[in-house]
Amino acid sequence: MNITLAHCQSFDNQDPVRELRELFSLPPGVIYLDGNSLGVMPKTAPARVADVVSREWGTDLIQSWNKNGWFQMPQKVGNKIARLIGANAGEVVATDSTSINLFKVLSAALNIAAKDAPRRKRIVSERSNFPTDLYIAEALCKERGFELDLVEPEEIAASLTAEVAVLMLTHVNYRTGAMHDMTAITAAAHAEGILTVWDLAHSAGAVPVDLTAAKADFAVGCGYKYLNGGPGAPAFVWVNPLHTDRFWQPLAGWWGHAAPFAFTPDYQPAAGITRYMCGTQPMISLAALDCGLDAMLAAESLGGMLALRKKSLALTDLFIQLVQERCAGHGLGLATPSAHGQRGSQVCLTREEGAYAIVQALIARGVVGDYRAGDGARDKDILRFGFTPLYIGFEDVWHAVEHLRQVLETGEWKKPEFNRKHAVT
Amino acid sequence: MNITLAHCQSFDNQDPVRELRELFSLPPGVIYLDGNSLGVMPKTAPARVADVVSREWGTDLIQSWNKNGWFQMPQKVGNKIARLIGANAGEVVATDSTSINLFKVLSAALNIAAKDAPRRKRIVSERSNFPTDLYIAEALCKERGFELDLVEPEEIAASLTAEVAVLMLTHVNYRTGAMHDMTAITAAAHAEGILTVWDLAHSAGAVPVDLTAAKADFAVGCGYKYLNGGPGAPAFVWVNPLHTDRFWQPLAGWWGHAAPFAFTPDYQPAAGITRYMCGTQPMISLAALDCGLDAMLAAESLGGMLALRKKSLALTDLFIQLVQERCAGHGLGLATPSAHGQRGSQVCLTREEGAYAIVQALIARGVVGDYRAGDGARDKDILRFGFTPLYIGFEDVWHAVEHLRQVLETGEWKKPEFNRKHAVT
Repeated sequence: MNITLAHCQSFDNQDPVRELRELFSLPPGVIYLDGNSLGVMPKTAPARVADVVSREWGTDLIQSWNKNGWFQMPQKVGNKIARLIGANAGEVVATDSTSINLFKVLSAALNIAAKDAPRRKRIVSERSNFPTDLYIAEALCKERGFELDLVEPEEIAASLTAEVAVLMLTHVNYRTGAMHDMTAITAAAHAEGILTVWDLAHSAGAVPVDLTAAKADFAVGCGYKYLNGGPGAPAFVWVNPLHTDRFWQPLAGWWGHAAPFAFTPDYQPAAGITRYMCGTQPMISLAALDCGLDAMLAAESLGGMLALRKKSLALTDLFIQLVQERCAGHGLGLATPSAHGQRGSQVCLTREEGAYAIVQALIARGVVGDYRAGDGARDKDILRFGFTPLYIGFEDVWHAVEHLRQVLETGEWKKPEFNRKHAVT
Repeated sequence: MNITLAHCQSFDNQDPVRELRELFSLPPGVIYLDGNSLGVMPKTAPARVADVVSREWGTDLIQSWNKNGWFQMPQKVGNKIARLIGANAGEVVATDSTSINLFKVLSAALNIAAKDAPRRKRIVSERSNFPTDLYIAEALCKERGFELDLVEPEEIAASLTAEVAVLMLTHVNYRTGAMHDMTAITAAAHAEGILTVWDLAHSAGAVPVDLTAAKADFAVGCGYKYLNGGPGAPAFVWVNPLHTDRFWQPLAGWWGHAAPFAFTPDYQPAAGITRYMCGTQPMISLAALDCGLDAMLAAESLGGMLALRKKSLALTDLFIQLVQERCAGHGLGLATPSAHGQRGSQVCLTREEGAYAIVQALIARGVVGDYRAGDGARDKDILRFGFTPLYIGFEDVWHAVEHLRQVLETGEWKKPEFNRKHAVT
């Protein structure tokens, strides 16, 4: 029996985390399937940000560093993120960008390798990793005399040799939504004496993550995707307590100093994760991120990440099934793995022709996904749809697929206005 | 003839940039002499930030990257900063923190040195430079096999030898307010084949800066002090066009890539200053910085930085004179140079005893300055007062000194509540 709109509505009625949607401001007339790129605004953000601007900055001014807790914000926000990624309080700071944080942890990992295993001179990563991760690794390799090996997912296991110092992976692939088994891969890496660095950009807040149980070594992630922290929100960094105090990182700014207000000329790294801080953090943007995390953590009383994960899989299953039932014969392929254990919280479709234009036609109809170009060889052009279980409903999925069906059946996507490319996000 | 309150009021009446004060939200009952640490809020900031949050993020969401110009914000804001520091449009980006930007330019400078003058293995800086600058330099020296020489201001000239690759200085000293002659020192460094890196944290927006005329090589600076960009606002970075495209920097994130949305696995640095970008920037905080710059640039029609500098010197002259006239016999010393050419926009007083408590007593009276501990040997404890010509008036100076006089004469500062130390900024 095919799925109907009424089915989808009944799924919404039975959804145990449905009420969380009320915590977010969803733009009217829009089905927003791009929370994997920029999460929506929590309803508390405007008032909170206004308060930080007008009262904390405008009135309290310099006193806010103590009075309004600005100094502790990276740790306070970090502690909230910790609850989503299987880390303990005091192990995470919200700071800088994902790229910068990756530079810090990769630097620390290479410092460990240089000391413990100086003959290991390679970093392994995935060719389809998010490019900024590869750029940062490439730059560090160039600086430190290491080599960066880029492999396909199925080649990872075989690439873990005695020459490798670090395995750097993004947990959920930004293009395809494919998810690695963090525990198994970390164990395989450790068995060969290799440190692991995980980028959680598409998994923190999207899928259950347990860095402690997985015995991961380092992790970074993004504040503005599934954590709904606002455009360019500070990112985060976690280091396994086994390593935190053993090695420093070279972005050794005063916020990572043991006594920043002693103003001593020599650097003494703070104990713990604070040494992964560098300079002063953007407090207004950090306050918005704090709002996003509060909305996310409201799920804890409704089953937390496990409940969200269950809904996320139900949403992506539904989308896949509806596309198969209602858009058959239109040349769509599925780039996202079918197996639940290998899937993040997004679904990526492929099409030989018109992927970009179809996404534009959908956006014009208020269904916001995005497009990622393929490399022409292994990877096809992708239509990317993120399903954030906090605020996307099952009826949303129905309507999204219905719009997709109409765009394809009418050939609407062939209109010239949908085929003019501009900068994409 | 001693100066009176009436004199100060007449100075305000004759002040050609007095109207700029109306652009800022000054907390009632406060004389804010800490704009050198955190600038006050421009009146446009609350509405602008609210719009970025509620409309650009809340409603337009991902489309804002193009529709609302998010991608170009670092360059757009950078172009405004350029007008204040003698740089050209396209030469400055507003991004990351001062510490991170210093790491980028110092890395690039060391890369140039390694290529052009591989035998030069030293960085020279000032012992009383802002510590985060020294920490970053120390870390890079450790990574690259360089040595950091810390000297006193009067030793700089003699320290410029054939072993030195880079001279890294803060233009205006954060503790004393002493200002270097950027043009003369840069020329002296270049005569010895040494590159210069300038930190403009206490000079951009405070004193006239002309990086182009000074033939400086690299510069960084802060967004939240005299630029009034809000707490932890993004910082900025400038590179002399002679060097920009010649060398890269290792924080090689996707925002510095020639084609960030081509998602190619290999790094190709963008042309120009954009290659000094790394990851995604905090848009809400960046919008606040944009407001601060607009308020600052409103001075351009009133004589610009030269008019502001004239007022700044008049304010600091007045403060020094009033302290000498009205606080004589209370053991205050002057750490800031008397000569105009060597003075930034702040005045630092010293006292053998009680500097911290006096600052606390003044804050309790609504006169907000700050305290910096001395190292006990060369440097004494400091009472630091910043005079931002955009919004501080001559009558403010009168009242600030009057409060200081009363605090000293009554011994008010000896009260226990002013002698309990907490974290200071």
